[in-house]
Amino acid sequence: MKKPINVTVTGATGQIAYSLLFRIAAGCMFGTDQPVNLTLLGRAGSNNAAMTGTMMELEDCAFPLLWNMVDTTDPMQGFRDADVALLVGARPRGPGMERADLLQANASIFQTQGRALNEVASRDVKVLVVGNPCNTNAWIAMKNAPDLKAENFSALMRLDQNRAEAQLAKRLQVRTTDLAHVAVWGNHSPSMAADVTFSTACGESVLPKLDNVWLEKEFAPTVAKRGGAILAARGASSAASAASASVDHMHDWVLGSNQRWVTMAVPSKGQYGVPEGMVFGFPCVCENGVATPVEGLALTDVTKTKILANIRELQAEAQAVKEFVP
Amino acid sequence: MKKPINVTVTGATGQIAYSLLFRIAAGCMFGTDQPVNLTLLGRAGSNNAAMTGTMMELEDCAFPLLWNMVDTTDPMQGFRDADVALLVGARPRGPGMERADLLQANASIFQTQGRALNEVASRDVKVLVVGNPCNTNAWIAMKNAPDLKAENFSALMRLDQNRAEAQLAKRLQVRTTDLAHVAVWGNHSPSMAADVTFSTACGESVLPKLDNVWLEKEFAPTVAKRGGAILAARGASSAASAASASVDHMHDWVLGSNQRWVTMAVPSKGQYGVPEGMVFGFPCVCENGVATPVEGLALTDVTKTKILANIRELQAEAQAVKEFVP
Repeated sequence: MKKPINVTVTGATGQIAYSLLFRIAAGCMFGTDQPVNLTLLGRAGSNNAAMTGTMMELEDCAFPLLWNMVDTTDPMQGFRDADVALLVGARPRGPGMERADLLQANASIFQTQGRALNEVASRDVKVLVVGNPCNTNAWIAMKNAPDLKAENFSALMRLDQNRAEAQLAKRLQVRTTDLAHVAVWGNHSPSMAADVTFSTACGESVLPKLDNVWLEKEFAPTVAKRGGAILAARGASSAASAASASVDHMHDWVLGSNQRWVTMAVPSKGQYGVPEGMVFGFPCVCENGVATPVEGLALTDVTKTKILANIRELQAEAQAVKEFVP
Repeated sequence: MKKPINVTVTGATGQIAYSLLFRIAAGCMFGTDQPVNLTLLGRAGSNNAAMTGTMMELEDCAFPLLWNMVDTTDPMQGFRDADVALLVGARPRGPGMERADLLQANASIFQTQGRALNEVASRDVKVLVVGNPCNTNAWIAMKNAPDLKAENFSALMRLDQNRAEAQLAKRLQVRTTDLAHVAVWGNHSPSMAADVTFSTACGESVLPKLDNVWLEKEFAPTVAKRGGAILAARGASSAASAASASVDHMHDWVLGSNQRWVTMAVPSKGQYGVPEGMVFGFPCVCENGVATPVEGLALTDVTKTKILANIRELQAEAQAVKEFVP
């Protein structure tokens, strides 16, 4: 049996974590031969009874791969020796809160977590930020962890890719497994750029089968505004699908994507004009635990314009939280 | 690729289904090489927006194994050609409702579903009733499906076994995978009889390592009343752990338990004095899609007495719903 992986999950009493934790413990994220130790990191003053209830239920599953489980509200304890950190918890937008207030409320959380990761996590920790605004939150954590490599940090845009693939498969009457090279660029916000320029279905380019009106007026906005549509239908935010995309993201990062393009927000190394260090959604290929953006693609002018808008948006977010980064 | 399995899930807008559906679609129940077609069966007048939201999220996961998905409120359509039916939906106990009222409210639901299964499901359908009171609900459905074999029907007691194993593992400081031959007899109610008489940890009998006071005053009541303890902690019923046990139950029934004892409530053939046809929790072994209670065990007097109490309780439940069975 393999040595267990230490996995720390924040926001453990929320709905995303309630889906995510059980799928991790069932072996969906790291494979059915990989035991895990789970650390649930709560906020000081958070709902302890809910945390206890979730842990009781995890225990009640008698998962063969769940070797150990602890909870704490101390980030320095929560991230100690973490191999994987899933930063799911974030402050949601409250009534009357401006976007700048939201950014700042979260900035403080991710500054603290970045510092703690810097001090106590495994030097090879893989960090996935799910809590929104996830790109900027990941960037704050990364900037506050100067002793860790920038490429240890990432944010969730696989949900956007999955949503794009689902819409495309439905339109083309194929299965999502028939699709390849679907990309989503930029920020996990309505500005994101879902891009099917390079996409294939059953090995053939999808572009001749799609019209621009559908792509611009239906496909792109449906993907970009899907979170709001789910919220309207369920009366609650996307939870199980966000958890599932988190499983996919980390699974492929750790175990490899087998040459498949998978969208991850990762710190730019200057690709496609994205400023270095900006946590930006790129199509990536994962191998040996390293996610590498696909380079040298001939982007359309539409995509280039959207990428530029995403860069500006992320620069504005960075500006709004500048006192939280060294 | 294998031919897809048709899976029908009732109560699809509830919390158990919200955990269960995503694990089925991820391949946890039938294996990662087995595609599924999902039918979500709602109540007429149920929350259509919530159903839509759940289906949108399932779509957004781009699950490779989820080939088709439909929803309906018509049981005759919902169970058509079903290979697997997961009857999760049930009427919860409302304020001022007596147990007899609850039994009757549910009896009507499971009568209708049994009749529909009888008419339109696959002749080899595997039915798992999760909605409580699950043993009696399963019995009602079975009795209303005379053209199906009795052994097509079962009710969920794997959650009780998983809970028993978790408590035992914690007490003995072993992993749940070190345990074997843990059984829970009877009705999924506080009367159930968790039984470690035949249990081993790492191949050795557990009995010499446990004292009777712990077994009777802590172990048995903790297992039997765990649902209430979770409810108190979470402010909501067990959902993810019930879903996980449902995955385990059906996984082992379909794919085999590899000689492992797994607790399932199945129609008695008279074993251990349980009246024929009563849907009763037994330790079972699953092979080739057939669940067979383990026979010939030398039960302790304590277990015999508890089994008798469970028989009486299930007889009283049957009496309360007698106008719903032919």
